[in-house]
Amino acid sequence: LGKIITGIRDIERTLNHINIKANINNIMIITKLHDIEPIQWAQKVIDFLLTSNDHIQLYIQEELWTNPYFAKSLDLEHCNEKQRIHFWRGDRCSFKPETIDLLITFGGDGTVLYGSWMFQKVIPPVLAFSLGSLGFLTEFDVQDYENILTNILENGYQCSIRMRFECTIMKAKNINREDANLKNEIKRLGKPDSDTHEILESYTVFNEVVIDRGPNSTMTSIELFGDYDSLTTAEADGLIISTPSGSTAYSLSAGGSLVHPEIPGILISPICPHTLSFRPLIIPESIILRLGVPYDSRSTAWCSFDGKNRVELNKGDFLTVTASRYPLPCIRQSSSKNAWFERLSETLHWNERKPQKPFIQTDQFSY
Amino acid sequence: LGKIITGIRDIERTLNHINIKANINNIMIITKLHDIEPIQWAQKVIDFLLTSNDHIQLYIQEELWTNPYFAKSLDLEHCNEKQRIHFWRGDRCSFKPETIDLLITFGGDGTVLYGSWMFQKVIPPVLAFSLGSLGFLTEFDVQDYENILTNILENGYQCSIRMRFECTIMKAKNINREDANLKNEIKRLGKPDSDTHEILESYTVFNEVVIDRGPNSTMTSIELFGDYDSLTTAEADGLIISTPSGSTAYSLSAGGSLVHPEIPGILISPICPHTLSFRPLIIPESIILRLGVPYDSRSTAWCSFDGKNRVELNKGDFLTVTASRYPLPCIRQSSSKNAWFERLSETLHWNERKPQKPFIQTDQFSY
Amino acid sequence: LGKIITGIRDIERTLNHINIKANINNIMIITKLHDIEPIQWAQKVIDFLLTSNDHIQLYIQEELWTNPYFAKSLDLEHCNEKQRIHFWRGDRCSFKPETIDLLITFGGDGTVLYGSWMFQKVIPPVLAFSLGSLGFLTEFDVQDYENILTNILENGYQCSIRMRFECTIMKAKNINREDANLKNEIKRLGKPDSDTHEILESYTVFNEVVIDRGPNSTMTSIELFGDYDSLTTAEADGLIISTPSGSTAYSLSAGGSLVHPEIPGILISPICPHTLSFRPLIIPESIILRLGVPYDSRSTAWCSFDGKNRVELNKGDFLTVTASRYPLPCIRQSSSKNAWFERLSETLHWNERKPQKPFIQTDQFSY
Amino acid sequence: LGKIITGIRDIERTLNHINIKANINNIMIITKLHDIEPIQWAQKVIDFLLTSNDHIQLYIQEELWTNPYFAKSLDLEHCNEKQRIHFWRGDRCSFKPETIDLLITFGGDGTVLYGSWMFQKVIPPVLAFSLGSLGFLTEFDVQDYENILTNILENGYQCSIRMRFECTIMKAKNINREDANLKNEIKRLGKPDSDTHEILESYTVFNEVVIDRGPNSTMTSIELFGDYDSLTTAEADGLIISTPSGSTAYSLSAGGSLVHPEIPGILISPICPHTLSFRPLIIPESIILRLGVPYDSRSTAWCSFDGKNRVELNKGDFLTVTASRYPLPCIRQSSSKNAWFERLSETLHWNERKPQKPFIQTDQFSY
Repeated sequence: LGKIITGIRDIERTLNHINIKANINNIMIITKLHDIEPIQWAQKVIDFLLTSNDHIQLYIQEELWTNPYFAKSLDLEHCNEKQRIHFWRGDRCSFKPETIDLLITFGGDGTVLYGSWMFQKVIPPVLAFSLGSLGFLTEFDVQDYENILTNILENGYQCSIRMRFECTIMKAKNINREDANLKNEIKRLGKPDSDTHEILESYTVFNEVVIDRGPNSTMTSIELFGDYDSLTTAEADGLIISTPSGSTAYSLSAGGSLVHPEIPGILISPICPHTLSFRPLIIPESIILRLGVPYDSRSTAWCSFDGKNRVELNKGDFLTVTASRYPLPCIRQSSSKNAWFERLSETLHWNERKPQKPFIQTDQFSY
Repeated sequence: LGKIITGIRDIERTLNHINIKANINNIMIITKLHDIEPIQWAQKVIDFLLTSNDHIQLYIQEELWTNPYFAKSLDLEHCNEKQRIHFWRGDRCSFKPETIDLLITFGGDGTVLYGSWMFQKVIPPVLAFSLGSLGFLTEFDVQDYENILTNILENGYQCSIRMRFECTIMKAKNINREDANLKNEIKRLGKPDSDTHEILESYTVFNEVVIDRGPNSTMTSIELFGDYDSLTTAEADGLIISTPSGSTAYSLSAGGSLVHPEIPGILISPICPHTLSFRPLIIPESIILRLGVPYDSRSTAWCSFDGKNRVELNKGDFLTVTASRYPLPCIRQSSSKNAWFERLSETLHWNERKPQKPFIQTDQFSY
Repeated sequence: LGKIITGIRDIERTLNHINIKANINNIMIITKLHDIEPIQWAQKVIDFLLTSNDHIQLYIQEELWTNPYFAKSLDLEHCNEKQRIHFWRGDRCSFKPETIDLLITFGGDGTVLYGSWMFQKVIPPVLAFSLGSLGFLTEFDVQDYENILTNILENGYQCSIRMRFECTIMKAKNINREDANLKNEIKRLGKPDSDTHEILESYTVFNEVVIDRGPNSTMTSIELFGDYDSLTTAEADGLIISTPSGSTAYSLSAGGSLVHPEIPGILISPICPHTLSFRPLIIPESIILRLGVPYDSRSTAWCSFDGKNRVELNKGDFLTVTASRYPLPCIRQSSSKNAWFERLSETLHWNERKPQKPFIQTDQFSY
Repeated sequence: LGKIITGIRDIERTLNHINIKANINNIMIITKLHDIEPIQWAQKVIDFLLTSNDHIQLYIQEELWTNPYFAKSLDLEHCNEKQRIHFWRGDRCSFKPETIDLLITFGGDGTVLYGSWMFQKVIPPVLAFSLGSLGFLTEFDVQDYENILTNILENGYQCSIRMRFECTIMKAKNINREDANLKNEIKRLGKPDSDTHEILESYTVFNEVVIDRGPNSTMTSIELFGDYDSLTTAEADGLIISTPSGSTAYSLSAGGSLVHPEIPGILISPICPHTLSFRPLIIPESIILRLGVPYDSRSTAWCSFDGKNRVELNKGDFLTVTASRYPLPCIRQSSSKNAWFERLSETLHWNERKPQKPFIQTDQFSY
């Protein structure tokens, strides 16, 4: 039995490190818009993509195109490449996600996060150019864009498959029933006569979904369910449900461990829990997590999704969190699992001793 | 690509929850020997196994057989079942591990740990009876042994497959060379002309392997390698390399997260690290970890394996830790992933509020 | 020099353990009003105080007097003690704090907290009766009330002097000035021409004052000042400024240490700080702490005082926290500093092993 | 009562910030001996002290005097200052501690620690010159030595009074008595007929004293006493008993808080404790701590003092820790309590954001 499992793991590993050679016809560009630098690099790359071949269609932010720093140097008004340029805007995503073959970002990890946000369902492979400081996701030095792009277009690429969560807010239909009991209602979910909740909204997140006390000054009660079973009731300022990718973000500041993105796990990190034994947990991604506000709770709770879209959970409401069927494929330079450790050092100054002087003096104590 | 990975995970999950129906002919018994209670229960179960069928062979600790509490009530001296009883001793394991079909333990988690220790390579499925207090591994109430055993023998069982580590100590052959450099030597491991280290000992562990400062009063330097690459140098009191099963043991007291046993990860939890950013890590089980003492280190380090077998690592020595090909299959009552949460509550008093009075008073503040 | 300091500490210690023998004429009663038990005990104690002497004046919650559980058994309508009973209500405190000689509470630590809240300036010694479960402040078993009260009235009492904070919210007068800079403004506070802020409100707290992100979904920036100097800018979910008494409350859940109430220190415990090196601090109570929202902050912050009175801090506003001139004298049974450890064990189950099973199994590993 | 305490605190604060003007006749020099830089600076300062006045006597390490880097540039063989130079060696301290008026160190915090070690009883004020990197104790830039020394000699100085611990190891006289019970024996200490223990050794420490498991691979049991009362039994890898000065050293790596040196407290920080509720504590310096190995313990424990002088504690032995009557007066540049925060930033990179990139990306998420 152990051997079969080992075999399965081998296959998975291989897949995670496989080289993907796909036709790339439609490329979307996302650029940080407040700085000059990413705009200017985006411009160079667009120029290169339009001139180095004649079939690639580009999808560009409208705000980028009208940006003074961008327009200045690129003059496509009269060129024949113009018809290969299409515009999109964040607020009305006038493109079909499934037709995009590659997403290129200029900025930092936040720009990739924004890309994840735009593609709530299927998301194409992401090529994240870094500008100066490195991030967890931005491995490619933009200065080397010609080689990088030529290589990807001709030889394909390798991806780090990043888990995302699909989060759905379920509103209680009737919160005033005397006998309302969330545990019973969740146990009956999916049964034909279950009619206690309805879908309010649904979001896909890359880093984390958080439930917290919001404007309340005292802690909140969150009932935690695994599939249909009640696991525990958390009395805390909040709970952070994080992907492995998000383990270097908010979860870390709440005491969570650093988790390699290839680990198929969900992190649950409590914020200021009431009991000292409520330590951060890591559970299999196959569990369907449900987090609800009990009907007898003294206060409500608030959700946020990758730090956005604040929604209130009233009594009886709950949130469902599952591993999304649409993970984010992040193109990577090296297929080595060890690259993650370099990212930690560069981005978090993890265990770096040069800038951080050792604080224990006693071992210098030799005369 | 994401879909394929999801498919693979599904297969793995199914395997982990599959029902196993195997012929059980040879059963080994391990009993805690210092208390009367486990001895008396072992005796009842042995009696039952010998009388309820005529083919099962039993392997029993010699020390148990000669124990006064055991001998008193069981008189097999003249019975015809005697030839179905075989003896073994911890110090000379006179049995073939691969012929044992089932291992039954009477005691706590420590007794299972001892079983793991005895079966360093192939280990049969373990049926762990609990006596009174529940543990992480001892799910079965011994009082119900007749039903439990009949059911397993007739209908089969489900297992929780628990990762173990294979740990090998590699001694540096020549520590006095001026130019000795551990990073270079590990990079060349496996190459034909690599001749810097030799195997000293090898252990299989269930919970954790620890490298620490031992009798030294100041911290130690441990160089950490992923496969053949140097990841970082840890300046700390020690490093705990733990399986998910071990996440509720020593690793927890060093600040590690609680990790579900189905997560295929290796936990690295530093003990009193020198830098505040060295937080606990969880990395894929496919990484070959190597942990060594640099040639220029001011002190040596010490290993221990599941809290036993203290070995000193001198300068240039290193330890290899990999997921063992021989995981421990632990028979379980329920196939639900949620059973782990019940174990946490029962064993760690995880997030329990009844015995642990809430310590935040401010929310009681309503008049 | 060291000797003088040691001498000073000796005096302080003596004072802290001195026996106080004062005339007790006016006693105020505070009772938890939602449970029957504290009401019935309050009634017995009131009865005893009225009948066992003829000079003590009692100040009783009006809501208690009209409570059905209270009125039922006590009939004072026609008795001559009636004129010794005075009523007060939480919302219109019709009493002079400085005339009260003793405050008796029936309930838990929360009831003492409520008493602290009512007496924002001078507060009399507090005798806190516990009903069943013990708290950090409720040392006296109510069943023994006759002996306890007789002893206090005749022989005096010893107090644990508990630091409280005086917290003042300072509003920025003009937040739209282009050149507004909080660091400069705080440096100039108290100078004759400083006219940038005005007092909004002031609160005395017993456990802690918290500044947090409130309804915002991302962290907040809080500028921290010691006296008039900028110390650092905290990027975090919030900061908990706690007294030693509060070290067992909210601060503990954010990772703060347990601090003995005799330590003259202020605890600063960050909630989910942005940088891993921002560890909890303990600073001398003689520092005037100021915590402000920088003018260029992207969001506001929110204060709460002992979990109450939520107030928003806008850009440029700041909060001043100092050790109050009016500490809370808490009457104690024993003058031993070690009593605090008993409280920890009873209330937090601190380091208790009976209910909390040891989680490290490896040391049970002896066969 | 509260007012008296406030008054006392005021006096204490004043003392801590008072300017001390004393005659300085005898100065001792301590220098790090392995680097050239501190030796060369020591030489310049010695030169200056000998030539700028005619009464100061200097006490110099013999090893420094014979060091080639030192001798080369200073030629005092024939000068009349020679008789004002005296030699000492670490191993035979041929000087009277009480006659030294000033101790000057060249090196880092470790050099001050070494000075503390040399002066186990009375210790003169310490002037700690920093060479390049700043430490917690080395505030004075050596490049400015002429101004600094002239100012101190002429105008006096201000000190930060640093608590030290006096630690005494008490050996059990008869460990084989059947009925030996450490709790009872410690309760009877000091009584005329108590004859269970004798003094083995005594050390004064500046940072911390540690009791740990030493070479054992499993945790140790340490019984903790406050004065003569048993407080709790710690099951852990060890306990760190730290001064506020030591709160930035080993205690910090075990999760202890950062404690300002003016706080009169003792830090108890457990290393990998068995129970999750054993959190770091801070207790008044007036408590006499005793830490012992119970007679029924399965293993011994080991002490170390500022990372040195490893001593084994056998069953029945205990260690006494008290605030020393001989604190270390550390001359400081500024009397501001806020200087400590600057030290934290410079030395620990505490809450610094420049070198440590923010790890939460979600708030950059605005397009």
